[in-house]
Amino acid sequence: MDNGLALNPQMGWNTWNTFACNINEDTILGAAKALKKLKFDEYGYHYVVMDDCWSLHERNATGYLQYDPVKFPRGIKHLADEIHALGLGFGMYSSAGKYTCGRYPGSLSFEEKDADLFAEWDVDYLKYDNCFNEGQSGTPLISFNRYDVMSKALNKTGRPILYSMCNWGEDSPWDWAPTIANSWRMSGDIVNVFDRYDDRCPCDDYICRLPGHHCSIMNIINKAAPLGQKAHTGAWNDLDMLEIGNENLNYEEQKLHFTIWAMVKSPLIMGHDIMHTSDQTLEILTNKDIIDLSQGKWGVGFRSYKKEHSQLWLQDSTDKSGNMAVALINNGDKDDDFTIGFEDIFLDEWDRRKVGYQVKDLWTKEDLGVVKDELTVKVKRHGVFVGK
Amino acid sequence: MDNGLALNPQMGWNTWNTFACNINEDTILGAAKALKKLKFDEYGYHYVVMDDCWSLHERNATGYLQYDPVKFPRGIKHLADEIHALGLGFGMYSSAGKYTCGRYPGSLSFEEKDADLFAEWDVDYLKYDNCFNEGQSGTPLISFNRYDVMSKALNKTGRPILYSMCNWGEDSPWDWAPTIANSWRMSGDIVNVFDRYDDRCPCDDYICRLPGHHCSIMNIINKAAPLGQKAHTGAWNDLDMLEIGNENLNYEEQKLHFTIWAMVKSPLIMGHDIMHTSDQTLEILTNKDIIDLSQGKWGVGFRSYKKEHSQLWLQDSTDKSGNMAVALINNGDKDDDFTIGFEDIFLDEWDRRKVGYQVKDLWTKEDLGVVKDELTVKVKRHGVFVGK
Amino acid sequence: MDNGLALNPQMGWNTWNTFACNINEDTILGAAKALKKLKFDEYGYHYVVMDDCWSLHERNATGYLQYDPVKFPRGIKHLADEIHALGLGFGMYSSAGKYTCGRYPGSLSFEEKDADLFAEWDVDYLKYDNCFNEGQSGTPLISFNRYDVMSKALNKTGRPILYSMCNWGEDSPWDWAPTIANSWRMSGDIVNVFDRYDDRCPCDDYICRLPGHHCSIMNIINKAAPLGQKAHTGAWNDLDMLEIGNENLNYEEQKLHFTIWAMVKSPLIMGHDIMHTSDQTLEILTNKDIIDLSQGKWGVGFRSYKKEHSQLWLQDSTDKSGNMAVALINNGDKDDDFTIGFEDIFLDEWDRRKVGYQVKDLWTKEDLGVVKDELTVKVKRHGVFVGK
Amino acid sequence: MDNGLALNPQMGWNTWNTFACNINEDTILGAAKALKKLKFDEYGYHYVVMDDCWSLHERNATGYLQYDPVKFPRGIKHLADEIHALGLGFGMYSSAGKYTCGRYPGSLSFEEKDADLFAEWDVDYLKYDNCFNEGQSGTPLISFNRYDVMSKALNKTGRPILYSMCNWGEDSPWDWAPTIANSWRMSGDIVNVFDRYDDRCPCDDYICRLPGHHCSIMNIINKAAPLGQKAHTGAWNDLDMLEIGNENLNYEEQKLHFTIWAMVKSPLIMGHDIMHTSDQTLEILTNKDIIDLSQGKWGVGFRSYKKEHSQLWLQDSTDKSGNMAVALINNGDKDDDFTIGFEDIFLDEWDRRKVGYQVKDLWTKEDLGVVKDELTVKVKRHGVFVGK
Repeated sequence: MDNGLALNPQMGWNTWNTFACNINEDTILGAAKALKKLKFDEYGYHYVVMDDCWSLHERNATGYLQYDPVKFPRGIKHLADEIHALGLGFGMYSSAGKYTCGRYPGSLSFEEKDADLFAEWDVDYLKYDNCFNEGQSGTPLISFNRYDVMSKALNKTGRPILYSMCNWGEDSPWDWAPTIANSWRMSGDIVNVFDRYDDRCPCDDYICRLPGHHCSIMNIINKAAPLGQKAHTGAWNDLDMLEIGNENLNYEEQKLHFTIWAMVKSPLIMGHDIMHTSDQTLEILTNKDIIDLSQGKWGVGFRSYKKEHSQLWLQDSTDKSGNMAVALINNGDKDDDFTIGFEDIFLDEWDRRKVGYQVKDLWTKEDLGVVKDELTVKVKRHGVFVGK
Repeated sequence: MDNGLALNPQMGWNTWNTFACNINEDTILGAAKALKKLKFDEYGYHYVVMDDCWSLHERNATGYLQYDPVKFPRGIKHLADEIHALGLGFGMYSSAGKYTCGRYPGSLSFEEKDADLFAEWDVDYLKYDNCFNEGQSGTPLISFNRYDVMSKALNKTGRPILYSMCNWGEDSPWDWAPTIANSWRMSGDIVNVFDRYDDRCPCDDYICRLPGHHCSIMNIINKAAPLGQKAHTGAWNDLDMLEIGNENLNYEEQKLHFTIWAMVKSPLIMGHDIMHTSDQTLEILTNKDIIDLSQGKWGVGFRSYKKEHSQLWLQDSTDKSGNMAVALINNGDKDDDFTIGFEDIFLDEWDRRKVGYQVKDLWTKEDLGVVKDELTVKVKRHGVFVGK
Repeated sequence: MDNGLALNPQMGWNTWNTFACNINEDTILGAAKALKKLKFDEYGYHYVVMDDCWSLHERNATGYLQYDPVKFPRGIKHLADEIHALGLGFGMYSSAGKYTCGRYPGSLSFEEKDADLFAEWDVDYLKYDNCFNEGQSGTPLISFNRYDVMSKALNKTGRPILYSMCNWGEDSPWDWAPTIANSWRMSGDIVNVFDRYDDRCPCDDYICRLPGHHCSIMNIINKAAPLGQKAHTGAWNDLDMLEIGNENLNYEEQKLHFTIWAMVKSPLIMGHDIMHTSDQTLEILTNKDIIDLSQGKWGVGFRSYKKEHSQLWLQDSTDKSGNMAVALINNGDKDDDFTIGFEDIFLDEWDRRKVGYQVKDLWTKEDLGVVKDELTVKVKRHGVFVGK
Repeated sequence: MDNGLALNPQMGWNTWNTFACNINEDTILGAAKALKKLKFDEYGYHYVVMDDCWSLHERNATGYLQYDPVKFPRGIKHLADEIHALGLGFGMYSSAGKYTCGRYPGSLSFEEKDADLFAEWDVDYLKYDNCFNEGQSGTPLISFNRYDVMSKALNKTGRPILYSMCNWGEDSPWDWAPTIANSWRMSGDIVNVFDRYDDRCPCDDYICRLPGHHCSIMNIINKAAPLGQKAHTGAWNDLDMLEIGNENLNYEEQKLHFTIWAMVKSPLIMGHDIMHTSDQTLEILTNKDIIDLSQGKWGVGFRSYKKEHSQLWLQDSTDKSGNMAVALINNGDKDDDFTIGFEDIFLDEWDRRKVGYQVKDLWTKEDLGVVKDELTVKVKRHGVFVGK
């Protein structure tokens, strides 16, 4: 979307994964301050996004949403001011449905009123969900029309508001969201599990009639693989919030997760209990080399191959350096060595297969020297090697 | 649907499976009295639902449906009165089509007239079918619009009428019915067979372009597995009427059938010849522990895994007890022992895997003592173990 | 469709398979006379249907279709008169598109004019094709609307005209055609080949986005298997014209073809060079026992099972006899013996499995005596046993 | 489309594969002159097509597209004049979207203005792309309507403009484009690779929700196989531009590519750096026997079979000669001998299997003598034998 926002994928933090509906001014401001204190903002994490459950269950007499005065005694505008005072952006949540997913009032048929209110509250970002959409899906056109109403309403406010669509990949948003939104979710909701089939996330494929939730990291990566071609400046595939810092994913799995999210240019929205960020979590989330793949001069990453126990992902730089990032995922059940032939790295560039390259490991920071013809790397179980 | 009805899945009895089109005042009142006499109502079975074939083949001169005066010499209102006098609710049937499935007049284009008539007759419940729908399907929006007309017409009558949608899962009603109906069928019609492919029910999957009929118990269970996430208070997936007490299903199969219907919060609508209820049928249908999974403080059950010969289903309590119901289906061809690891029971709750639990068998009522790390159960062929 | 026609599936002869576009008054009248002379009409073959290529390439100044005066020097009305004089019905062809499949003018947007003209010409039957439909497909509703316009136009003429829809099964016509048409094609065009994959008929399934042509007999049978449940009086699945009497299918294959077409209640429209009907062709097409399965008191046949080399098809009588027709297809590569268990014949009727039945072979007319528990039959390669 | 154009599939050259966005008057005129100098026009290559990136990023005040005056100092009309002076046709590019794929202004909602401008500039050909289409896809009807607007606008100009639709096969254009366009792309974009799965072209099938790019030669051939039946005079399946003369495809692969594109009657649009055409490239692209399969009296080719390592393609002549072209693709990994039975060549013509045929190799020009019953050919790895 051509609104000057999300020129690189947005970065920030969202309330949902840690607090779900238990949010209030204190939790959100506390998180914002923790983000600032840990200097996450200096790495690009800019938005503090308040997810579902912030409103009352009824609109007011003139049809406007009302914040819950118990949770927000000084109001949302005040909260936004405080967050702005920290130099951060403030994100808001609603749904393109009759209700939000938590069954608070949704914005369907109230788009202009709600956009006006959000602008009045100095909101910088809208996550716009898909629950209870009154059957308004089934063709790209039906879904486009529903989400376009809010896009136009946001534009009309005059305030630049990053528009983060969340329709779970229904009706192929990668085909039609780029002109109306800054990002679009491309799958069901993530869960903090590395790789597991779950009936609640029943699809293996990016075309899916029941996106669901409890989608594992590898499930989302596999769905995202063909979609990178649809992303560009201001218009990104959203693979859902980060599970880094939440329990259950080990160190290797978290690095893999962060690497691929960066390479495919997904928004990088943290979801952990930021007020209790561990050193390891901090280390992963602030790896400058990885963040550079997301925010620096790099194209959208894509997958070169998928084998039973490994995947090779590639990302071309867009400066004139001819640099390339190469990530080897080990999704098998043991640590292993992998040899990557240059024919799989330089898929369509035959001349580049013939020269040698200096390789650096972006996680260990180790210099691997000059490599020719093929690259051999040790990768831990559920880990990733990423070099450039 | 937010009409105050079906706060738990509705329970009752329906004429179709035993009587099909051979209904009249005597058969229905006889069934209602039998229900009362056997005290089914004390277990929650409240609605007596009259299915297809109650009307004449023509509407009257002003466009209203007419009951068949041979079958109902004292009229439908009288029948409703008698059923109400027994303390039961009265259910009615029509179809969102030109004809009902039995080719009597359907309600398509006559929704307001028909809803008004049903309200005038003191109807408490409408099963609304899908035959002869004039091509009004193919996207969620087309189907939503067709069923929403009747939803609005029922609401407009002012009388609370439970709205039981029956479009066989076409166009993913779990996505759009929750705001307009109390329940929605999610598959083709059930048959009293445990597990069989039948060309008349050709789909294995919840996305299906020919729902059909003669769908076996296991066929419906497999289709229902991913859908539980879409149900909530007042809005339930309907797996179709119960085949308990009909011939062909053995004791084990019937207990399995009843257990899963309860756990996934399907309406529990009996379909057997209630005037000739056997002791075994009565025992199954009135198991208080199982009925509690449907009507008590429990979330919607979901499947943890599906293996070749078994499935594990789980259901969390919604009181603060931390209780969990665990059902192991043996759909293999012989009695067998099954060991269930706690990692499959506490999928996303790692801490809970470490403690021990008191387990009770909900069918035998046997106390299995405290179990740690894993649970081992003997399950008969086509049977179920369910404990909590 | 409730127009009093096709109470049993229509029978007749169509020009296409033998003559394609090379039709004229002589060929059609010659065929009609041959039909009469061979007494096909006494077996139920009533309609002589003129397929594509009868018109000029332009409508006249007032927008009416014009017959080709070279092919029909005395006009279509005259042809209809002659056919009526033989006691036969006359069928006409058009397409619900801009052009017919042979690229003559189609009826899309001209439905009323064309229906009026057909009625004026005393047409008794309309085969209505699907070529060049201007994208008017993709949901049942779009297709329904397109075909409903002609249905209404035909009704409005006041003349009973059998409406034979031919949209190749697109958008599931079995769901919406029964209220507007007497029959609907459910697949791509047939070819005179028993069983062969052909890229021009690429689907194996009844849900198909490219129905095509060159569909083999077994391809169509497999697609038709789940659809019988949708047919009823006046509303039939059409498996396409008969290939009996055309080269390439052997005697066994032709009997199998005719048997299943009769059992599933497809229209029985001959397509061979009727003026040169062989004795064998005559024998097959006039087997009274088989025709009775189509035209007599029998329900719509359905498939009990499909194995690698055989299929079992069943058909219940609708008189009170309790009779059942049982057909065993041998689609393997050699003659073989097959034993059919009663559990596969009486799928849902457990009591009937216990008694013995008198069986007659409907092709050899042989009496097989009383059979109990199971039925063993010898069936030639690509042949069928059908008994009752 | 019945506009008198593309009576045989169009031939020519397009800027994209060599120059992408780096086009200007010099490059295009240089290419046109090279085409003329190498006498490609004498073989049928008539159109010089300017692809994306010719315009400014804004329309003018009255809503008309503006050419980039830096790239085209003398304007597009002048360029067209120069190309016409060479006896060639001039092709233009736009997209049925808000933007072109290169994010220049698209023609959606501006169809009449743009068609008028193109006609004024004496454009002979329009390639009309599919990027940023605002969700206007999902059913054949939605896509038809979007592309029909431009078809009507072009017709209205009075200038014959060949209409080359490029919607990548979405919504089955082969079903609805024949009445509104001269050709339609049937897949994602081609890449100069013989046979490779690529995530950016994720579909194997002609029904595809993400056509993408980087589709290999064999990927496109396999998708095209069932579609030939939909093509006819003035209305062709477009398999995308030729990769002949680009690096990476070897001599055998290029001959195979050119042979099948000709046999299936795809437009033959060169994409190589025509100013630096090698002798081999010239030899392939000017093989008169192969070009005759595209432009001469031949039907649309189709595939007789697909095996693991080979495919047999057939093409009937439409003169009365009874001639047939037979192509055997070796897509296995080594040179091999293949024996082709006449039953696979004369699929539905049993009599023709019995006689002998004179066979000529259309690439080596070798006479293979008279062949009976079967044809044995040596075919190199990734090569093709084509004879007639």
